[in-house]
Amino acid sequence: MNAPAKAVQSPEAFLDSLFDESILIKTGVDGLYGRAGVFEEVIDRFEDAVTKMAVGDKATRIHFPPGMPRKNLEKAGYLKSFPQLAGCVHSFMGDNADHAKLVGMIEKGEDWTEMQDATEVALTPAACYPLYPTVAAAGPVPDGGKLFDLKSYCFRHEPSKDPGRMQLFRMREFVRIGTADDVIAFRATWLERGEQLIKSLGLPCVIDLANDPFFGRPGRMLAANQREQGLKFELLIPVASDDNPTACLSFNYHQNHFGTLWGMQFADGEAVHSACVGFGLERTALALFRHHGTKVEAWPDDVRRVLWG
Amino acid sequence: MNAPAKAVQSPEAFLDSLFDESILIKTGVDGLYGRAGVFEEVIDRFEDAVTKMAVGDKATRIHFPPGMPRKNLEKAGYLKSFPQLAGCVHSFMGDNADHAKLVGMIEKGEDWTEMQDATEVALTPAACYPLYPTVAAAGPVPDGGKLFDLKSYCFRHEPSKDPGRMQLFRMREFVRIGTADDVIAFRATWLERGEQLIKSLGLPCVIDLANDPFFGRPGRMLAANQREQGLKFELLIPVASDDNPTACLSFNYHQNHFGTLWGMQFADGEAVHSACVGFGLERTALALFRHHGTKVEAWPDDVRRVLWG
Repeated sequence: MNAPAKAVQSPEAFLDSLFDESILIKTGVDGLYGRAGVFEEVIDRFEDAVTKMAVGDKATRIHFPPGMPRKNLEKAGYLKSFPQLAGCVHSFMGDNADHAKLVGMIEKGEDWTEMQDATEVALTPAACYPLYPTVAAAGPVPDGGKLFDLKSYCFRHEPSKDPGRMQLFRMREFVRIGTADDVIAFRATWLERGEQLIKSLGLPCVIDLANDPFFGRPGRMLAANQREQGLKFELLIPVASDDNPTACLSFNYHQNHFGTLWGMQFADGEAVHSACVGFGLERTALALFRHHGTKVEAWPDDVRRVLWG
Repeated sequence: MNAPAKAVQSPEAFLDSLFDESILIKTGVDGLYGRAGVFEEVIDRFEDAVTKMAVGDKATRIHFPPGMPRKNLEKAGYLKSFPQLAGCVHSFMGDNADHAKLVGMIEKGEDWTEMQDATEVALTPAACYPLYPTVAAAGPVPDGGKLFDLKSYCFRHEPSKDPGRMQLFRMREFVRIGTADDVIAFRATWLERGEQLIKSLGLPCVIDLANDPFFGRPGRMLAANQREQGLKFELLIPVASDDNPTACLSFNYHQNHFGTLWGMQFADGEAVHSACVGFGLERTALALFRHHGTKVEAWPDDVRRVLWG
């Protein structure tokens, strides 16, 4: 039999079992891990299954790197809503004398990081953030709207021993831009498709109303509003914990928030609405290893058929 | 005919032509671009051709995220040799009051980046950097050594209008660890294979002795030493400029430098030697678009056969 190698009692125990089985590789920093070839193979095959499901939609594929302009992260309000999760890239910009000082500080084990200055680059927190200014720059959105197929590495500063909460992880995302009706219908389609796909992989799941992790006291009100208006749903799978299942897919309706903010509009000047569905690739792979065991050759036939065709 | 859309006079003119043809997508920061679906398709197909060439080698596939422990970048001496290229991730770690101050600074257009502190994460400058401590942690290296197949996003802070010099780019890399003879033979094999692969893609190329861009005055001596000892070769293709061709592949012999530094050793305690071959995925894709034009359907049949099989 090919049950999970260990009974999983806690996120940390699950992480340790993944290290023991060489599925993930320790780096010494929580939330920052190497991935074994078999882990990558599962992500590749899962992505292919997602692609197959969306093939008739004819989405426009765009790939953005793991970084985006810092000023766009500022303009998006990310530092207001999620300052604790943002990451900005700092680099050394000094001369020979500064360099000598820097090297000396490192040799003495001192904190040298103040010798760096902020670059123009911030790390991308979700695959769709770099898309909106791109769409706005392309001019008026045609009737019928647009549909994009994105994939990006994302960064969130939340070091954790829960393997489902990595600091650097990949997100596949479809983004629909159009009228309110267009994008609500898109989200409804993916709520169905997402559940169908995850069930076809032999994974238990529930879909639930959710909210983003807004920062601080004012954030509590934002979260409550988001829930009241039904703007965010998540597909949850028990991964590292049965009591606190992990959000592996998320389904978000942004109303005309990004349309107004970035100036994405129809020819008549009306701001577009937008919605997205995001697939947490590492999280879904972890769910598969958790439920079907670490030997992919021994996964149930029907699951293997979905992934390996 | 399917000649390049424009005669290319300069790196900047080439970059503009890629924006015009929607192969790359502007973000407002030099060296930080979105990639169109067709660009990704070319990278995927080129990677498959590389994989096919290496299939008999049975390399161990590992994937590392775009970030690595900052302390490992320090220990590797990267800040000593290439301080100007390194990127470290800084994040906000304050409380509600700090957050109010941060938001106020952003609203007033002030520089708020000092409100962040260095995290434990640095961006990966080359795909193989996170590998060496991983190998060391796995215990003695067996006779016959090891071979790894890596792929990673890499960051180098060198904003530029040359599309071949992106700040965030992907590198596929094979790394051989073993005796000096093992790793020198590995490098010789890939010098041949690399040239064969690039020629099969209809691209003009030369292989030349090279050196890394070591920082400052002491760096000049390091570069000269590296050349004298023949430690680094590059496969160069004219991409954005005929006079200054672009290094698309590199072939590096590290002697026992990383073996000694990280404690990678054989059972008898002798430090291993290492060598790597790196494929600049964006650079090779750019070379293909430069020489065969922007319409992949019209690329020469023999090139299409190598990529699309």
